[in-house]
Amino acid sequence: MTHLAMGDGAEFDRIRALLSHFGTQAAGIGDDAAVLSIPTGEQLIASVDVAVEAVHFRAEWLAPDEIAWRAMHAALSDLAAMGATPRGVLLSWTLPPDRLQWLDAIAAGSAAAARAAEVPIVGGNLSRGDTLTLGTTVMGSAVHPVSRAGAQVGDRCYVTGRLGGPQAALRAWLAGAQPSAAARERFAHPVARLREGRWLAGAGATAMIDISDGLLADAGHLAAASGVSLAITSALVPVHPDSVHADALRSGEEYELFITAPLIDCAQFERELGTTLTAVGEVRHAEGGPRVRFDTPGDVSRVDSPRGHDHFS
Amino acid sequence: MTHLAMGDGAEFDRIRALLSHFGTQAAGIGDDAAVLSIPTGEQLIASVDVAVEAVHFRAEWLAPDEIAWRAMHAALSDLAAMGATPRGVLLSWTLPPDRLQWLDAIAAGSAAAARAAEVPIVGGNLSRGDTLTLGTTVMGSAVHPVSRAGAQVGDRCYVTGRLGGPQAALRAWLAGAQPSAAARERFAHPVARLREGRWLAGAGATAMIDISDGLLADAGHLAAASGVSLAITSALVPVHPDSVHADALRSGEEYELFITAPLIDCAQFERELGTTLTAVGEVRHAEGGPRVRFDTPGDVSRVDSPRGHDHFS
Repeated sequence: MTHLAMGDGAEFDRIRALLSHFGTQAAGIGDDAAVLSIPTGEQLIASVDVAVEAVHFRAEWLAPDEIAWRAMHAALSDLAAMGATPRGVLLSWTLPPDRLQWLDAIAAGSAAAARAAEVPIVGGNLSRGDTLTLGTTVMGSAVHPVSRAGAQVGDRCYVTGRLGGPQAALRAWLAGAQPSAAARERFAHPVARLREGRWLAGAGATAMIDISDGLLADAGHLAAASGVSLAITSALVPVHPDSVHADALRSGEEYELFITAPLIDCAQFERELGTTLTAVGEVRHAEGGPRVRFDTPGDVSRVDSPRGHDHFS
Repeated sequence: MTHLAMGDGAEFDRIRALLSHFGTQAAGIGDDAAVLSIPTGEQLIASVDVAVEAVHFRAEWLAPDEIAWRAMHAALSDLAAMGATPRGVLLSWTLPPDRLQWLDAIAAGSAAAARAAEVPIVGGNLSRGDTLTLGTTVMGSAVHPVSRAGAQVGDRCYVTGRLGGPQAALRAWLAGAQPSAAARERFAHPVARLREGRWLAGAGATAMIDISDGLLADAGHLAAASGVSLAITSALVPVHPDSVHADALRSGEEYELFITAPLIDCAQFERELGTTLTAVGEVRHAEGGPRVRFDTPGDVSRVDSPRGHDHFS
């Protein structure tokens, strides 16, 4: 799709520069709003996420293109958790004057992230402001979106990937050290589990949530929404090589998926998608209210949110 | 639609407080992403807009509920300019600690603005940060969206409403004075011309754009996108009672519509919608490149963007 012709002026010069970075990843830019087709029979799935400098990342930790990649896949992860196929993203960026020189790298990082997810950049908004803020709206579609509210007593609980990498990277940075390359990569270049989410939706997942607040917290969100309790066998939770068990349970911004479903063939999943899928527990009746129970002594946690990330979708 | 059950914790308490303000205007909050139905045969129309304190508004000028109203209708105006029906909005708010006490008023203003536009609030994101930033993603649908690129030689040019009110309010504030109540209202409570946009789309509008950068600039955007020139009869441009002609041509953030179309019955439009529609010019061949030509001497303007509002959709 071509873009609309734009006139002269610094504003449009900046947009033309962005479009040169987006390349074929941008589609139909330049009108009042983007126009997208949602396949007949599918529902629109949409979410917005924001990455604010000094709140969600620090400029000393990541290069600007990594900040942009991470912002986009963090947002896309919410589509993955619904089993949706991404159809378009809208970017809303606020840049302070001393970050304007990052604009090219941010655009390049966004284009690479969109390309990896096979989603077009369909529009956006560029504003000045005091704080670098990358807002990302993701729009996708699904025939049968998987909510976090559908877990059934008797289902198994599964988790994709290995947890703890982002937490390990954070710990290193906060201690003034450099994280291992593998842990850093998990923080800087998360990959939204879009194919995995669709596969799991097709395989009968009853509920899904992406792990952004940490397994403990996100399993709690799913339990509360579904009105069930979850019995997690702590020793089964897959741990990133650079992490330890206790951290893996709480590490946030993993962008892995936590799933409830009847029996799933984890070996087949791994063969077809190249990602591990691990059974970690089961769904129980919510006697006395939804709970997440880990099998380690003293680790019976009420459903709550130990992290500070506010989120109303 | 009910919302998903949420667990304990300060994060969810804040979301529950927001939901109490949104009331029936919120729908299906609490999952990883919102789920919306787009009517069969219609396309998804989507746009994102942002209002940053000290960039797009000043806290001395507007009450927090007005800031929220204005942010939402500014975003919805892009749907109006496509002839779309709004289906859902996503809110992405960043609040510094010294603005947290505004959260209730911002939520109430957003709910009122959404109610006026008959659009559900389907999700969002709340973050801390240094600057009050209200991001709004609007999603709508239309069978035949009207782009800004379809103007045809021989079409007439029309504008809704009377221009200059927001500029008059800004001039007063910047001079340390109080604007008239009417001018202030135009700035504080713009109403996206959603019904008008759909009516005009049905009446054969070939191109539409909302007036956010000022008539001169936005007519220029439409001319550039359509590859035409526009001959505007300056004396016909409808002027707000508290403004003057020269200001009305440049006043931004009007959120009125500029339209090209074959002949439209302006009296019928006004009768059915209660808003004025005024013929102000016609579409010509773009000899020597797209131009907006006003009939006042010395007012032959190249297509460019005199204002600083960056926008890539």
